[in-house]
Amino acid sequence: MKLFNYFRSSASYRVRIALALKGLSYDYVPVHLVRAEHREPAYAGRVGDALVPALELEDGTALTQSMAIIEYLDETHPAPPLLPADAPGRARVRALAQIVACEIHPLNNLRVLQYLTQTLQVDEAAKTAWYRHWARGGLEAFERQLGLLAGERAAAGLPPSRLCWGDTPTLADCCLVPQVFNAQRFQVSLDGLPLTMAAWQAASALPAFQAAHPSACPDHEA
Amino acid sequence: MKLFNYFRSSASYRVRIALALKGLSYDYVPVHLVRAEHREPAYAGRVGDALVPALELEDGTALTQSMAIIEYLDETHPAPPLLPADAPGRARVRALAQIVACEIHPLNNLRVLQYLTQTLQVDEAAKTAWYRHWARGGLEAFERQLGLLAGERAAAGLPPSRLCWGDTPTLADCCLVPQVFNAQRFQVSLDGLPLTMAAWQAASALPAFQAAHPSACPDHEA
Repeated sequence: MKLFNYFRSSASYRVRIALALKGLSYDYVPVHLVRAEHREPAYAGRVGDALVPALELEDGTALTQSMAIIEYLDETHPAPPLLPADAPGRARVRALAQIVACEIHPLNNLRVLQYLTQTLQVDEAAKTAWYRHWARGGLEAFERQLGLLAGERAAAGLPPSRLCWGDTPTLADCCLVPQVFNAQRFQVSLDGLPLTMAAWQAASALPAFQAAHPSACPDHEA
Repeated sequence: MKLFNYFRSSASYRVRIALALKGLSYDYVPVHLVRAEHREPAYAGRVGDALVPALELEDGTALTQSMAIIEYLDETHPAPPLLPADAPGRARVRALAQIVACEIHPLNNLRVLQYLTQTLQVDEAAKTAWYRHWARGGLEAFERQLGLLAGERAAAGLPPSRLCWGDTPTLADCCLVPQVFNAQRFQVSLDGLPLTMAAWQAASALPAFQAAHPSACPDHEA
Protein backbone atom coordinates (compact mmCIF):
# COMPACT_ATOMS: atom_id res chain seq x y z
CA MET A 1 0.00 0.00 0.00
CA LYS A 2 1.01 3.61 -0.57
CA LEU A 3 -0.04 6.40 1.77
CA PHE A 4 -0.19 9.84 0.18
CA ASN A 5 0.48 11.99 3.11
CA TYR A 6 1.69 15.30 4.57
CA PHE A 7 3.44 15.19 7.92
CA ARG A 8 1.48 18.07 9.42
CA SER A 9 -1.95 17.09 8.06
CA SER A 10 -4.15 16.09 10.94
CA ALA A 11 -6.23 13.76 8.76
CA SER A 12 -3.05 12.06 7.49
CA TYR A 13 -1.87 11.63 11.08
CA ARG A 14 -5.11 9.80 11.96
CA VAL A 15 -4.51 7.24 9.22
CA ARG A 16 -0.84 6.80 10.18
CA ILE A 17 -1.98 5.93 13.71
CA ALA A 18 -4.51 3.40 12.44
CA LEU A 19 -1.93 1.77 10.14
CA ALA A 20 0.54 1.56 13.04
CA LEU A 21 -2.09 0.11 15.40
CA LYS A 22 -2.87 -2.55 12.78
CA GLY A 23 0.84 -3.24 12.27
CA LEU A 24 0.54 -2.58 8.53
CA SER A 25 3.53 -1.45 6.48
CA TYR A 26 3.20 1.01 3.60
CA ASP A 27 5.17 3.27 1.32
CA TYR A 28 5.06 6.89 2.43
CA VAL A 29 4.51 9.29 -0.48
CA PRO A 30 4.82 12.92 0.64
CA VAL A 31 2.40 15.46 -0.85
CA HIS A 32 3.41 18.96 0.18
CA LEU A 33 0.25 20.94 0.95
CA VAL A 34 1.91 24.32 1.40
CA ARG A 35 3.49 23.90 -2.05
CA ALA A 36 -0.01 22.87 -3.31
CA GLU A 37 1.24 19.54 -4.67
CA HIS A 38 -2.23 18.11 -3.92
CA ARG A 39 -3.69 20.30 -6.66
CA GLU A 40 -1.28 19.15 -9.36
CA PRO A 41 -2.98 17.08 -12.11
CA ALA A 42 -0.93 13.94 -11.41
CA TYR A 43 -2.47 13.82 -7.92
CA ALA A 44 -5.84 15.54 -8.30
CA GLY A 45 -6.58 13.46 -11.40
CA ARG A 46 -6.58 10.30 -9.30
CA VAL A 47 -7.91 11.61 -5.99
CA GLY A 48 -11.29 13.22 -6.53
CA ASP A 49 -11.23 15.50 -3.50
CA ALA A 50 -7.58 16.49 -4.14
CA LEU A 51 -6.84 16.20 -0.44
CA VAL A 52 -4.52 14.12 1.71
CA PRO A 53 -4.49 11.43 2.87
CA ALA A 54 -5.21 8.92 0.12
CA LEU A 55 -4.41 5.24 0.49
CA GLU A 56 -3.50 3.39 -2.69
CA LEU A 57 -4.28 -0.30 -2.48
CA GLU A 58 -2.31 -3.07 -4.21
CA ASP A 59 -4.74 -3.05 -7.15
CA GLY A 60 -4.21 0.67 -7.71
CA THR A 61 -7.50 1.81 -6.14
CA ALA A 62 -7.00 5.13 -4.31
CA LEU A 63 -9.17 5.40 -1.19
CA THR A 64 -9.88 8.89 0.13
CA GLN A 65 -11.14 10.60 3.30
CA SER A 66 -9.34 9.63 6.51
CA MET A 67 -12.39 8.33 8.37
CA ALA A 68 -13.49 6.15 5.46
CA ILE A 69 -9.93 4.82 5.12
CA ILE A 70 -9.75 3.91 8.80
CA GLU A 71 -13.11 2.11 8.68
CA TYR A 72 -11.83 0.22 5.60
CA LEU A 73 -8.66 -0.80 7.45
CA ASP A 74 -10.74 -1.92 10.41
CA GLU A 75 -13.00 -4.04 8.19
CA THR A 76 -10.18 -5.63 6.21
CA HIS A 77 -7.72 -6.06 9.11
CA PRO A 78 -9.99 -6.64 12.11
CA ALA A 79 -7.26 -7.13 14.74
CA PRO A 80 -6.88 -5.13 16.88
CA PRO A 81 -10.37 -3.61 16.45
CA LEU A 82 -10.67 0.18 16.34
CA LEU A 83 -14.39 0.10 17.09
CA PRO A 84 -16.25 -1.71 19.91
CA ALA A 85 -18.17 -4.87 19.09
CA ASP A 86 -21.59 -3.51 20.16
CA ALA A 87 -23.61 -1.06 18.06
CA PRO A 88 -24.17 1.53 20.84
CA GLY A 89 -20.45 1.50 21.67
CA ARG A 90 -19.60 1.91 18.01
CA ALA A 91 -21.98 4.86 17.80
CA ARG A 92 -20.30 6.42 20.84
CA VAL A 93 -16.80 6.05 19.43
CA ARG A 94 -17.79 7.30 15.97
CA ALA A 95 -19.55 10.32 17.47
CA LEU A 96 -16.46 11.25 19.50
CA ALA A 97 -14.32 10.93 16.37
CA GLN A 98 -16.79 13.08 14.45
CA ILE A 99 -16.68 15.88 17.02
CA VAL A 100 -13.07 16.22 15.84
CA ALA A 101 -13.54 15.33 12.17
CA CYS A 102 -16.79 17.22 11.49
CA GLU A 103 -16.83 20.03 14.07
CA ILE A 104 -13.23 21.10 14.76
CA HIS A 105 -10.77 20.12 12.06
CA PRO A 106 -12.73 21.29 8.97
CA LEU A 107 -12.74 24.85 10.33
CA ASN A 108 -9.05 24.93 11.10
CA ASN A 109 -7.26 23.37 8.18
CA LEU A 110 -4.80 25.13 5.93
CA ARG A 111 -7.14 26.13 3.09
CA VAL A 112 -9.64 27.68 5.48
CA LEU A 113 -6.96 29.70 7.26
CA GLN A 114 -5.68 30.81 3.84
CA TYR A 115 -9.19 31.96 2.84
CA LEU A 116 -9.43 33.99 6.05
CA THR A 117 -6.15 35.81 5.49
CA GLN A 118 -6.08 36.02 1.70
CA THR A 119 -9.74 36.52 0.75
CA LEU A 120 -11.29 37.99 3.90
CA GLN A 121 -8.07 39.84 4.72
CA VAL A 122 -8.28 39.10 8.42
CA ASP A 123 -5.10 39.77 10.39
CA GLU A 124 -2.98 37.19 12.21
CA ALA A 125 -4.62 37.89 15.56
CA ALA A 126 -8.12 37.33 14.20
CA LYS A 127 -6.97 34.17 12.39
CA THR A 128 -5.50 32.79 15.61
CA ALA A 129 -8.65 33.73 17.52
CA TRP A 130 -10.73 31.87 14.91
CA TYR A 131 -8.53 28.80 15.26
CA ARG A 132 -8.71 28.82 19.04
CA HIS A 133 -12.45 29.48 19.11
CA TRP A 134 -13.32 26.34 17.13
CA ALA A 135 -10.61 24.15 18.63
CA ARG A 136 -11.43 25.10 22.21
CA GLY A 137 -15.21 24.92 21.71
CA GLY A 138 -14.92 21.53 20.04
CA LEU A 139 -12.64 20.14 22.73
CA GLU A 140 -15.07 21.38 25.39
CA ALA A 141 -17.84 19.47 23.61
CA PHE A 142 -15.54 16.43 23.52
CA GLU A 143 -14.96 16.80 27.27
CA ARG A 144 -18.69 17.11 28.03
CA GLN A 145 -19.35 14.02 25.94
CA LEU A 146 -16.61 12.05 27.74
CA GLY A 147 -18.22 13.12 31.02
CA LEU A 148 -21.65 11.87 29.93
CA LEU A 149 -20.12 8.61 28.72
CA ALA A 150 -18.27 8.15 32.03
CA GLY A 151 -21.61 8.42 33.82
CA GLU A 152 -23.22 5.93 31.44
CA ARG A 153 -20.37 3.45 31.88
CA ALA A 154 -20.61 3.73 35.66
CA ALA A 155 -24.38 3.17 35.52
CA ALA A 156 -23.82 0.09 33.35
CA GLY A 157 -21.20 -1.32 35.75
CA LEU A 158 -18.35 -0.83 33.25
CA PRO A 159 -14.92 0.32 34.48
CA PRO A 160 -13.86 3.91 33.74
CA SER A 161 -12.25 4.47 30.34
CA ARG A 162 -8.49 4.90 30.30
CA LEU A 163 -8.56 6.01 26.65
CA CYS A 164 -11.52 7.73 24.94
CA TRP A 165 -13.64 4.58 25.19
CA GLY A 166 -12.38 1.68 27.28
CA ASP A 167 -8.77 0.61 27.56
CA THR A 168 -7.82 -0.04 23.95
CA PRO A 169 -7.31 2.55 21.21
CA THR A 170 -10.25 3.33 18.96
CA LEU A 171 -11.12 5.58 16.06
CA ALA A 172 -11.77 8.30 18.65
CA ASP A 173 -8.17 8.21 19.89
CA CYS A 174 -6.94 8.23 16.26
CA CYS A 175 -8.75 11.59 15.89
CA LEU A 176 -8.11 13.10 19.32
CA VAL A 177 -4.33 12.81 19.37
CA PRO A 178 -3.73 14.72 16.10
CA GLN A 179 -6.28 17.33 17.17
CA VAL A 180 -4.45 17.97 20.45
CA PHE A 181 -1.16 18.15 18.55
CA ASN A 182 -2.68 20.84 16.34
CA ALA A 183 -4.16 22.69 19.30
CA GLN A 184 -0.76 22.79 20.96
CA ARG A 185 0.80 24.25 17.80
CA PHE A 186 -1.70 27.11 17.98
CA GLN A 187 -1.36 27.43 21.77
CA VAL A 188 -5.01 26.65 22.41
CA SER A 189 -5.71 26.43 26.14
CA LEU A 190 -6.09 22.80 27.20
CA ASP A 191 -6.92 23.63 30.81
CA GLY A 192 -10.08 22.27 32.35
CA LEU A 193 -10.29 19.25 30.02
CA PRO A 194 -9.29 16.49 32.45
CA LEU A 195 -10.96 13.52 30.78
CA THR A 196 -9.83 14.54 27.30
CA MET A 197 -6.24 15.16 28.33
CA ALA A 198 -6.06 11.93 30.35
CA ALA A 199 -7.19 10.00 27.25
CA TRP A 200 -4.71 11.95 25.12
CA GLN A 201 -1.87 11.21 27.51
CA ALA A 202 -2.67 7.50 27.72
CA ALA A 203 -2.90 7.18 23.93
CA SER A 204 0.21 9.25 23.31
CA ALA A 205 2.27 6.85 25.42
CA LEU A 206 1.50 3.94 23.10
CA PRO A 207 4.16 2.98 20.52
CA ALA A 208 1.77 3.17 17.55
CA PHE A 209 0.89 6.77 18.36
CA GLN A 210 4.55 7.66 18.73
CA ALA A 211 5.46 5.98 15.43
CA ALA A 212 2.78 8.06 13.68
CA HIS A 213 3.85 11.40 15.16
CA PRO A 214 4.60 14.17 12.63
CA SER A 215 8.18 14.38 13.88
CA ALA A 216 8.68 10.74 12.81
CA CYS A 217 7.57 11.40 9.19
CA PRO A 218 10.12 11.39 6.35
CA ASP A 219 8.87 14.80 5.14
CA HIS A 220 8.97 16.37 8.60
CA GLU A 221 10.10 19.99 8.78
CA ALA A 222 10.90 21.76 12.01
CA MET B 1 -37.24 6.63 19.53
CA LYS B 2 -37.14 10.41 19.72
CA LEU B 3 -35.34 12.53 17.13
CA PHE B 4 -34.16 15.92 18.37
CA ASN B 5 -34.20 17.86 15.22
CA TYR B 6 -34.40 21.22 13.42
CA PHE B 7 -36.16 21.28 10.08
CA ARG B 8 -33.47 23.29 8.32
CA SER B 9 -30.46 21.48 9.82
CA SER B 10 -28.70 19.59 7.10
CA ALA B 11 -27.37 16.98 9.53
CA SER B 12 -30.90 16.45 10.92
CA TYR B 13 -32.21 16.02 7.36
CA ARG B 14 -29.65 13.23 6.72
CA VAL B 15 -30.95 11.25 9.70
CA ARG B 16 -34.60 11.83 8.74
CA ILE B 17 -33.82 10.32 5.32
CA ALA B 18 -32.12 7.28 6.88
CA LEU B 19 -35.04 6.73 9.29
CA ALA B 20 -37.49 6.96 6.41
CA LEU B 21 -35.45 4.57 4.24
CA LYS B 22 -35.45 2.08 7.12
CA GLY B 23 -39.19 2.57 7.64
CA LEU B 24 -38.66 3.48 11.30
CA SER B 25 -41.15 5.63 13.19
CA TYR B 26 -40.06 8.17 15.80
CA ASP B 27 -41.23 11.12 17.81
CA TYR B 28 -40.08 14.43 16.34
CA VAL B 29 -38.81 16.85 19.00
CA PRO B 30 -38.05 20.28 17.52
CA VAL B 31 -34.96 22.13 18.78
CA HIS B 32 -34.91 25.64 17.38
CA LEU B 33 -31.31 26.50 16.48
CA VAL B 34 -31.91 30.15 15.66
CA ARG B 35 -33.49 30.59 19.11
CA ALA B 36 -30.43 28.70 20.52
CA GLU B 37 -32.57 26.04 22.18
CA HIS B 38 -29.70 23.58 21.63
CA ARG B 39 -27.62 25.50 24.16
CA GLU B 40 -30.23 25.39 26.93
CA PRO B 41 -29.17 23.21 29.90
CA ALA B 42 -32.05 20.77 29.50
CA TYR B 43 -30.70 19.84 26.06
CA ALA B 44 -26.95 20.51 26.32
CA GLY B 45 -26.81 18.64 29.62
CA ARG B 46 -27.80 15.43 27.84
CA VAL B 47 -26.18 15.95 24.44
CA GLY B 48 -22.44 16.54 24.89
CA ASP B 49 -21.89 18.41 21.63
CA ALA B 50 -25.07 20.48 22.12
CA LEU B 51 -25.92 20.05 18.44
CA VAL B 52 -28.78 18.55 16.47
CA PRO B 53 -29.62 15.87 15.58
CA ALA B 54 -29.64 13.56 18.58
CA LEU B 55 -31.49 10.27 18.59
CA GLU B 56 -32.85 9.09 21.91
CA LEU B 57 -33.22 5.33 22.09
CA GLU B 58 -35.88 3.46 24.04
CA ASP B 59 -33.51 3.05 27.02
CA GLY B 60 -32.91 6.81 27.18
CA THR B 61 -29.45 6.77 25.56
CA ALA B 62 -28.98 9.87 23.40
CA LEU B 63 -26.88 9.19 20.30
CA THR B 64 -25.19 12.17 18.66
CA GLN B 65 -23.54 13.10 15.35
CA SER B 66 -25.58 12.38 12.24
CA MET B 67 -23.08 10.05 10.55
CA ALA B 68 -22.63 7.94 13.69
CA ILE B 69 -26.41 7.78 14.10
CA ILE B 70 -26.92 6.59 10.52
CA GLU B 71 -24.22 3.91 10.88
CA TYR B 72 -25.96 2.80 14.11
CA LEU B 73 -29.32 2.58 12.34
CA ASP B 74 -27.71 0.60 9.53
CA GLU B 75 -26.14 -1.86 11.99
CA THR B 76 -29.27 -2.34 14.07
CA HIS B 77 -31.80 -2.32 11.20
CA PRO B 78 -29.84 -3.83 8.30
CA ALA B 79 -32.64 -3.75 5.70
CA PRO B 80 -32.43 -1.97 3.38
CA PRO B 81 -28.66 -1.52 3.69
CA LEU B 82 -27.25 2.00 3.42
CA LEU B 83 -23.72 0.76 2.73
CA PRO B 84 -22.53 -1.78 0.15
CA ALA B 85 -21.62 -5.28 1.31
CA ASP B 86 -17.96 -5.10 0.16
CA ALA B 87 -15.27 -3.16 2.02
CA PRO B 88 -14.01 -1.13 -0.98
CA GLY B 89 -17.59 -0.16 -1.87
CA ARG B 90 -18.23 0.85 1.72
CA ALA B 91 -15.10 2.99 1.67
CA ARG B 92 -16.27 4.65 -1.54
CA VAL B 93 -19.70 5.48 -0.15
CA ARG B 94 -18.34 6.72 3.19
CA ALA B 95 -15.79 8.92 1.41
CA LEU B 96 -18.50 10.51 -0.74
CA ALA B 97 -20.59 11.14 2.37
CA GLN B 98 -17.58 12.66 4.09
CA ILE B 99 -16.90 15.10 1.27
CA VAL B 100 -20.23 16.59 2.34
CA ALA B 101 -19.99 15.98 6.10
CA CYS B 102 -16.31 16.89 6.62
CA GLU B 103 -15.49 19.29 3.78
CA ILE B 104 -18.62 21.30 2.93
CA HIS B 105 -21.22 21.36 5.67
CA PRO B 106 -18.95 22.22 8.66
CA LEU B 107 -17.92 25.45 6.94
CA ASN B 108 -21.44 26.54 6.12
CA ASN B 109 -23.55 25.88 9.16
CA LEU B 110 -25.34 28.49 11.19
CA ARG B 111 -22.78 29.04 13.94
CA VAL B 112 -19.96 29.55 11.44
CA LEU B 113 -21.98 32.08 9.43
CA GLN B 114 -22.81 33.84 12.70
CA TYR B 115 -19.11 34.01 13.63
CA LEU B 116 -18.32 35.55 10.24
CA THR B 117 -20.92 38.30 10.56
CA GLN B 118 -20.86 38.91 14.31
CA THR B 119 -17.20 38.41 15.26
CA LEU B 120 -15.33 39.02 12.01
CA GLN B 121 -17.89 41.64 10.95
CA VAL B 122 -17.95 40.51 7.33
CA ASP B 123 -20.82 41.87 5.28
CA GLU B 124 -23.64 39.87 3.71
CA ALA B 125 -21.93 39.71 0.30
CA ALA B 126 -18.73 38.27 1.79
CA LYS B 127 -20.72 35.81 3.88
CA THR B 128 -22.57 34.60 0.81
CA ALA B 129 -19.32 34.38 -1.15
CA TRP B 130 -17.84 32.25 1.66
CA TYR B 131 -20.85 29.96 1.59
CA ARG B 132 -20.74 29.55 -2.16
CA HIS B 133 -16.96 29.04 -2.24
CA TRP B 134 -17.02 26.03 0.05
CA ALA B 135 -20.28 24.57 -1.26
CA ARG B 136 -19.28 24.88 -4.90
CA GLY B 137 -15.71 23.64 -4.32
CA GLY B 138 -16.96 20.67 -2.33
CA LEU B 139 -19.59 19.76 -4.90
CA GLU B 140 -16.95 19.96 -7.65
CA ALA B 141 -14.83 17.50 -5.63
CA PHE B 142 -17.90 15.30 -5.28
CA GLU B 143 -18.42 15.43 -9.06
CA ARG B 144 -14.78 14.55 -9.79
CA GLN B 145 -15.02 11.64 -7.39
CA LEU B 146 -18.25 10.40 -9.02
CA GLY B 147 -16.44 10.60 -12.37
CA LEU B 148 -13.52 8.52 -11.11
CA LEU B 149 -15.93 5.99 -9.61
CA ALA B 150 -17.88 5.77 -12.88
CA GLY B 151 -14.63 4.86 -14.63
CA GLU B 152 -13.80 2.26 -11.98
CA ARG B 153 -17.25 0.70 -12.22
CA ALA B 154 -17.00 0.51 -16.01
CA ALA B 155 -13.55 -1.11 -15.75
CA ALA B 156 -14.97 -3.66 -13.28
CA GLY B 157 -17.90 -4.47 -15.58
CA LEU B 158 -20.46 -2.91 -13.19
CA PRO B 159 -23.42 -0.94 -14.58
CA PRO B 160 -23.37 2.86 -14.22
CA SER B 161 -24.70 4.21 -10.90
CA ARG B 162 -28.15 5.74 -10.97
CA LEU B 163 -27.71 7.13 -7.45
CA CYS B 164 -24.36 8.06 -5.88
CA TRP B 165 -23.25 4.42 -5.77
CA GLY B 166 -25.35 1.83 -7.58
CA ASP B 167 -29.11 1.84 -7.81
CA THR B 168 -30.16 1.87 -4.16
CA PRO B 169 -29.85 4.76 -1.70
CA THR B 170 -26.76 4.86 0.49
CA LEU B 171 -25.22 7.04 3.17
CA ALA B 172 -23.83 9.18 0.32
CA ASP B 173 -27.32 10.02 -0.94
CA CYS B 174 -28.44 10.78 2.64
CA CYS B 175 -25.73 13.46 2.69
CA LEU B 176 -25.93 14.74 -0.88
CA VAL B 177 -29.64 15.58 -0.95
CA PRO B 178 -29.59 17.90 2.10
CA GLN B 179 -26.41 19.53 0.80
CA VAL B 180 -28.01 20.34 -2.54
CA PHE B 181 -31.08 21.67 -0.73
CA ASN B 182 -28.79 24.01 1.23
CA ALA B 183 -26.87 25.03 -1.88
CA GLN B 184 -30.12 25.96 -3.59
CA ARG B 185 -31.14 28.12 -0.62
CA PHE B 186 -27.91 30.10 -1.04
CA GLN B 187 -28.19 30.11 -4.84
CA VAL B 188 -24.96 28.23 -5.35
CA SER B 189 -24.42 27.43 -9.03
CA LEU B 190 -25.13 23.78 -9.71
CA ASP B 191 -24.15 23.95 -13.38
CA GLY B 192 -21.56 21.55 -14.72
CA LEU B 193 -22.20 18.87 -12.10
CA PRO B 194 -24.01 16.30 -14.27
CA LEU B 195 -23.27 13.15 -12.27
CA THR B 196 -23.98 14.81 -8.94
CA MET B 197 -27.24 16.35 -10.07
CA ALA B 198 -28.40 13.13 -11.75
CA ALA B 199 -27.85 11.26 -8.47
CA TRP B 200 -29.59 14.07 -6.58
CA GLN B 201 -32.57 13.95 -8.93
CA ALA B 202 -32.91 10.16 -8.75
CA ALA B 203 -32.72 10.18 -4.94
CA SER B 204 -35.08 13.14 -4.59
CA ALA B 205 -37.78 11.25 -6.47
CA LEU B 206 -37.87 8.48 -3.85
CA PRO B 207 -40.67 8.62 -1.24
CA ALA B 208 -38.27 8.39 1.75
CA PHE B 209 -36.39 11.47 0.58
CA GLN B 210 -39.64 13.36 0.08
CA ALA B 211 -40.94 12.37 3.51
CA ALA B 212 -37.74 13.73 5.08
CA HIS B 213 -37.82 17.08 3.25
CA PRO B 214 -37.65 20.18 5.49
CA SER B 215 -41.04 21.31 4.16
CA ALA B 216 -42.57 18.11 5.59
CA CYS B 217 -41.26 18.77 9.14
CA PRO B 218 -43.66 19.80 11.92
CA ASP B 219 -41.42 22.80 12.80
CA HIS B 220 -41.12 23.97 9.21
CA GLU B 221 -41.12 27.72 8.63
CA ALA B 222 -41.40 29.32 5.23
